[in-house]
Amino acid sequence: MKKQTLFFLLLAACISLNAQTPEHSHSHGRKIEFPDIPGYRTLKCDFHIHTVFSDGNVWPTIRVEEALKDGLDAISMTDHIEYQPHKDDIPHPDRNRSFEIAKRFAEAYDILVIRGSEITRSMPPGHFNAIFLEDANKLKVEDVFESFREAKRQGAYVFWNHPNWTAQRPDGITRFDDLHLQLLKEGLFQGIEVVNDITYSDESLQMALENNLTIMGTSDIHGLVDWQFEVPEGGHRPITLVMATGKTPESIKEALLAGRTIAWFNNLLIGKEEYVKPLVMASLKIKSATYPGKTSVARIEIENTSDADLQLRNQSPYTFHANSDVLTLKSHEVTTLEVKTLERKDSIELPFEVLNAVVAPNLHPSIQLTVKME
Amino acid sequence: MKKQTLFFLLLAACISLNAQTPEHSHSHGRKIEFPDIPGYRTLKCDFHIHTVFSDGNVWPTIRVEEALKDGLDAISMTDHIEYQPHKDDIPHPDRNRSFEIAKRFAEAYDILVIRGSEITRSMPPGHFNAIFLEDANKLKVEDVFESFREAKRQGAYVFWNHPNWTAQRPDGITRFDDLHLQLLKEGLFQGIEVVNDITYSDESLQMALENNLTIMGTSDIHGLVDWQFEVPEGGHRPITLVMATGKTPESIKEALLAGRTIAWFNNLLIGKEEYVKPLVMASLKIKSATYPGKTSVARIEIENTSDADLQLRNQSPYTFHANSDVLTLKSHEVTTLEVKTLERKDSIELPFEVLNAVVAPNLHPSIQLTVKME
Amino acid sequence: MKKQTLFFLLLAACISLNAQTPEHSHSHGRKIEFPDIPGYRTLKCDFHIHTVFSDGNVWPTIRVEEALKDGLDAISMTDHIEYQPHKDDIPHPDRNRSFEIAKRFAEAYDILVIRGSEITRSMPPGHFNAIFLEDANKLKVEDVFESFREAKRQGAYVFWNHPNWTAQRPDGITRFDDLHLQLLKEGLFQGIEVVNDITYSDESLQMALENNLTIMGTSDIHGLVDWQFEVPEGGHRPITLVMATGKTPESIKEALLAGRTIAWFNNLLIGKEEYVKPLVMASLKIKSATYPGKTSVARIEIENTSDADLQLRNQSPYTFHANSDVLTLKSHEVTTLEVKTLERKDSIELPFEVLNAVVAPNLHPSIQLTVKME
Amino acid sequence: MKKQTLFFLLLAACISLNAQTPEHSHSHGRKIEFPDIPGYRTLKCDFHIHTVFSDGNVWPTIRVEEALKDGLDAISMTDHIEYQPHKDDIPHPDRNRSFEIAKRFAEAYDILVIRGSEITRSMPPGHFNAIFLEDANKLKVEDVFESFREAKRQGAYVFWNHPNWTAQRPDGITRFDDLHLQLLKEGLFQGIEVVNDITYSDESLQMALENNLTIMGTSDIHGLVDWQFEVPEGGHRPITLVMATGKTPESIKEALLAGRTIAWFNNLLIGKEEYVKPLVMASLKIKSATYPGKTSVARIEIENTSDADLQLRNQSPYTFHANSDVLTLKSHEVTTLEVKTLERKDSIELPFEVLNAVVAPNLHPSIQLTVKME
Repeated sequence: MKKQTLFFLLLAACISLNAQTPEHSHSHGRKIEFPDIPGYRTLKCDFHIHTVFSDGNVWPTIRVEEALKDGLDAISMTDHIEYQPHKDDIPHPDRNRSFEIAKRFAEAYDILVIRGSEITRSMPPGHFNAIFLEDANKLKVEDVFESFREAKRQGAYVFWNHPNWTAQRPDGITRFDDLHLQLLKEGLFQGIEVVNDITYSDESLQMALENNLTIMGTSDIHGLVDWQFEVPEGGHRPITLVMATGKTPESIKEALLAGRTIAWFNNLLIGKEEYVKPLVMASLKIKSATYPGKTSVARIEIENTSDADLQLRNQSPYTFHANSDVLTLKSHEVTTLEVKTLERKDSIELPFEVLNAVVAPNLHPSIQLTVKME
Repeated sequence: MKKQTLFFLLLAACISLNAQTPEHSHSHGRKIEFPDIPGYRTLKCDFHIHTVFSDGNVWPTIRVEEALKDGLDAISMTDHIEYQPHKDDIPHPDRNRSFEIAKRFAEAYDILVIRGSEITRSMPPGHFNAIFLEDANKLKVEDVFESFREAKRQGAYVFWNHPNWTAQRPDGITRFDDLHLQLLKEGLFQGIEVVNDITYSDESLQMALENNLTIMGTSDIHGLVDWQFEVPEGGHRPITLVMATGKTPESIKEALLAGRTIAWFNNLLIGKEEYVKPLVMASLKIKSATYPGKTSVARIEIENTSDADLQLRNQSPYTFHANSDVLTLKSHEVTTLEVKTLERKDSIELPFEVLNAVVAPNLHPSIQLTVKME
Repeated sequence: MKKQTLFFLLLAACISLNAQTPEHSHSHGRKIEFPDIPGYRTLKCDFHIHTVFSDGNVWPTIRVEEALKDGLDAISMTDHIEYQPHKDDIPHPDRNRSFEIAKRFAEAYDILVIRGSEITRSMPPGHFNAIFLEDANKLKVEDVFESFREAKRQGAYVFWNHPNWTAQRPDGITRFDDLHLQLLKEGLFQGIEVVNDITYSDESLQMALENNLTIMGTSDIHGLVDWQFEVPEGGHRPITLVMATGKTPESIKEALLAGRTIAWFNNLLIGKEEYVKPLVMASLKIKSATYPGKTSVARIEIENTSDADLQLRNQSPYTFHANSDVLTLKSHEVTTLEVKTLERKDSIELPFEVLNAVVAPNLHPSIQLTVKME
Repeated sequence: MKKQTLFFLLLAACISLNAQTPEHSHSHGRKIEFPDIPGYRTLKCDFHIHTVFSDGNVWPTIRVEEALKDGLDAISMTDHIEYQPHKDDIPHPDRNRSFEIAKRFAEAYDILVIRGSEITRSMPPGHFNAIFLEDANKLKVEDVFESFREAKRQGAYVFWNHPNWTAQRPDGITRFDDLHLQLLKEGLFQGIEVVNDITYSDESLQMALENNLTIMGTSDIHGLVDWQFEVPEGGHRPITLVMATGKTPESIKEALLAGRTIAWFNNLLIGKEEYVKPLVMASLKIKSATYPGKTSVARIEIENTSDADLQLRNQSPYTFHANSDVLTLKSHEVTTLEVKTLERKDSIELPFEVLNAVVAPNLHPSIQLTVKME
């Protein structure tokens, strides 16, 4: 081989290799971003929030401001009905107050505030949020069943809060007591928190799947979102992504009752496979797909438009030129994947296990990218 | 339940949850850091480096400065023997020059410079680095076998460079031609690059394991390390971690011949299980391990002292209070892991698959943490 | 000149020049840091803070948490006496409540909480803070003079808030109406805000100096400190540095009455020369002072231990080797200053105008560094 | 005053104050940015650069890559004619080689490479750069005057390098020896470095002004620009801004001979008033100018489109609502300036001293902003 040729081959290789460096898109702020999926809008929602009207530490307006900074579509103030440690200072008997203050403040912005309240009992049944209420005060009755039935009469959507809470379950294990089964039987709650504050529960997920309960993720914020979830350092509050037909209270309620949700927590997506897969697929955009030079190594540029760093495990028969079988597509970046296809193909099928998503305990969904080569 | 009690339970829970936030240790500079393993020092080495004396773009002293900034223990200048595009300007016939200049400059610092050279042929056999040479010039002979035999006579350690290079293997697949088998049979090379520049090869790893070749990772740097590997943005040059009995050329050579290496590339550790497992184990320090309050949820603080973000998959029978089965222990941070052990234990066994390490294609090593509860 | 000599001169110069690069000390968090001055401790204090008990948006405990994060030594909750927009929800008539809640929460920490209140009147006289009160409620009387007199009876320290506030002074100009002069004459207030929230006023400073009023800087925070002063982006809340004999309420009060304060606002220090000069002097530490090689260019390493980027104007007869007459000593960094002294001296006098400090409108204090050469 | 009114005033004030927070524009990369000035393009140029062909440490192509990353318009390789420490390895006698290699490499990019060379003598006269040469080799003659005359014959532009260099001037003071005066008298050099590497010299500036020499700032880079000037940490290489009629070698030469330059060094602009003033003026854009509410405090949003943090001293009769007389308009940000004009005006004149620019030793230029109120 002539040196001159070798030189050009070396040069070509250097340039080609150099070009594989991931492109960085513009840096993102704190607004949470996930794409819509076919047929639905992906709404970012937090339905478990406290204020000074129960045991939270801020006025309801701060909760709206936090949510606006986080780019949320809908929130619910869910102060405890039966628990008001600030009662000496805030004796107002109306359990709708935090909602009303937040609602009025939010009118100037494009964010929905949903009327809610937290039914706060010792275990069983523990704590439950009822949202889409007409009047929170009417839930303040001694008999817990009557409280739930009132929520039902008002057309509320009800979900079980932190069933894994060690203050009520010292082993942290979510389980149904008889009372929960009775509530379920009577149709008195429809959802369950799989994520609450800084906890996630495999058992809650299992319970959600077994009992057809809607999967919820909430911040349960009492202090400041920025501090609790280390937002300036890159953290995010836990939320529920709701796949709704529109940005209206009615659409959200319909979606929650239909179970169309994904919990988003600490870079983990938790939901039913039928929603998680389209969300991950919608997050990925093929920017280019070529075979450079005379190689049969496909060079595919993939943009991840979501907030999740997607951790993928290769399930294709191919190996990669710059990665083992486990790779990360970083949030809001374009990653170049080089696939050794042995021969040049018109189209490549790339199945991946998505390790940072769960559709059941220890079960990660699979997606399949179909890449048309240019 | 009395409100007062509930209040304290809530308060306790808030404090407990709050405390779980990962502690951030002091920020790290660019110096690459991995701990020693039992019986060996973990030396950070880059044995594939170019300068203006072949087709690189910097004077050898810059290579020493880069290596010092990266915290390396040993480097080798490995300019091409047969390929000198700058020959018109740098006609010096001595192929030891880049080594000598680097060596002299390095004398003021605690870094080893190893004499090396790159045997540069068309495929087969392609390119090979010979290091620990006595005189690089003597390798400049037409017959490729004679070149290798001369390296052997000089006591060199020889490894195959970028066997996956698309300029020489258009499908990017590492395979042995007859000539390679002959070289192997004659004991003329002992290692193989599984990582070169910005590429990694599963097939090279497979070949290394099947043929008992030492696993190598190198930068093959021609331009600037800072640019090529995006160091200011948090990237790192690929290197070989060498498990040596001491920081001497002899110890390093012995370790290379014995196959005690791990390639470190783009947050991936590649090596034999017998070295990767102790390295990961040595990187992890249990800072505390308690059962808070009356819970049976173990709270374990783990420090990761290595540069690798360790991506782990839970293989224990337990579930976690704040993670699914896949979690990341960030580099140089303390992560709190909460394990639901159902009952209080004196000691907990925590086996994990290490997803960002490979010991064979698609095969990730398992480690087992034994946590003594306080 | 021989080449060899030239080479060494060049080398020496390169090394010398290289070494002038400022050293970066470890990165600082949000805790505000200023050194003590001879005879006094420098306490970081914010005496103008609101909570939900008047028109602020957080519970008093959040104010203590913010202050702890900011490293403050003392704070005062100063909710409006006469203005309570949240009264429907928080009808508690006791104007000491926010103090009491903050005080109890702060007991676990090393921070002082001072009882205070804001006398809130239309202009004149406008708003005034009274701190070190015994009972805020007693200030709630119709006659403004009686309110001030009650504060005096209680031994309070009283200062005029935002006299430049455009809602009360549409031209933003601080001026004394007859009523203020009467208050002054009767000794009913002793301080004045030169800094309030995100404003600074030259006229307020002038008034402070002319009337021997203590110079105050306060956050007047209603929302969140992190948002209002962009703390994650490097901003800081405005505070008053109080030069006190100890960290006790009594010492602080004594210092305030004696006028020993500096307002710290947006990298600006505002105070009397007798306190600003020692503070800047105490912030500067000579780390080394040498004449390299055969030069008469003094190489002086100066550490700035304060949070202020010190902007200095050279007033010495010397010129600098790497700066014009205006230079910045960055906060918490070591800067190397090279001074061309023409001949080698045992000691160098370096007078500087401190541009980011004011001791009167448009008047910047001068400091004098005496540098003993090693 | 009614409480309701007070509430709205307070609210209005809060919103107004809040809005004054500086807007941050998108973050800037390392490309150096300064606007054009009326009649001229502002070209970013570095005319003092070394490579392995004298005592630099990189191949000329790296110099072009650095310059492209820095956004430069023109560079010159200026290797020493008489000084080649790498001569044993690079014996090539042609002193044009580094230019030629850089020139060829640069052809693919929009950057000009100017042929240059450094006349390297002991003091006097010291070192001089001759650029726009036809053949550098012809300058290699023993007699220093003949070397300069040859440069003149070739139509070169010649400037004195680091006249403050302590290796040649141990006191760091720039002064003219007889030989310099002779060179000047004969018209053998036209410029002088006021900035070299990490040094600046008031005396050089004085000499430039007194002798009508063009003001130059250069990196004199030998190692890597990124390291020497701490580019990842926000530093920048020193350059000369050349006010040229176009981006051609001829235009640049014409501008250099006409003295239309500004040296840019460590946030300092050094040049003749007639060029510095228009550059600062061109850097500032009024984005809005209003009187909010019923106030006479003008609210002016000013964008600084340059790389310089502009440190200004107020010279108007007005005071500011959020600043003392000294303020900083941060690079590539919009700063809101609030000016207390006492009464509402249609147009406001704002003269400022620009402290981070010098037009003579200790002399800072003044600019005047005319702000039309909306």
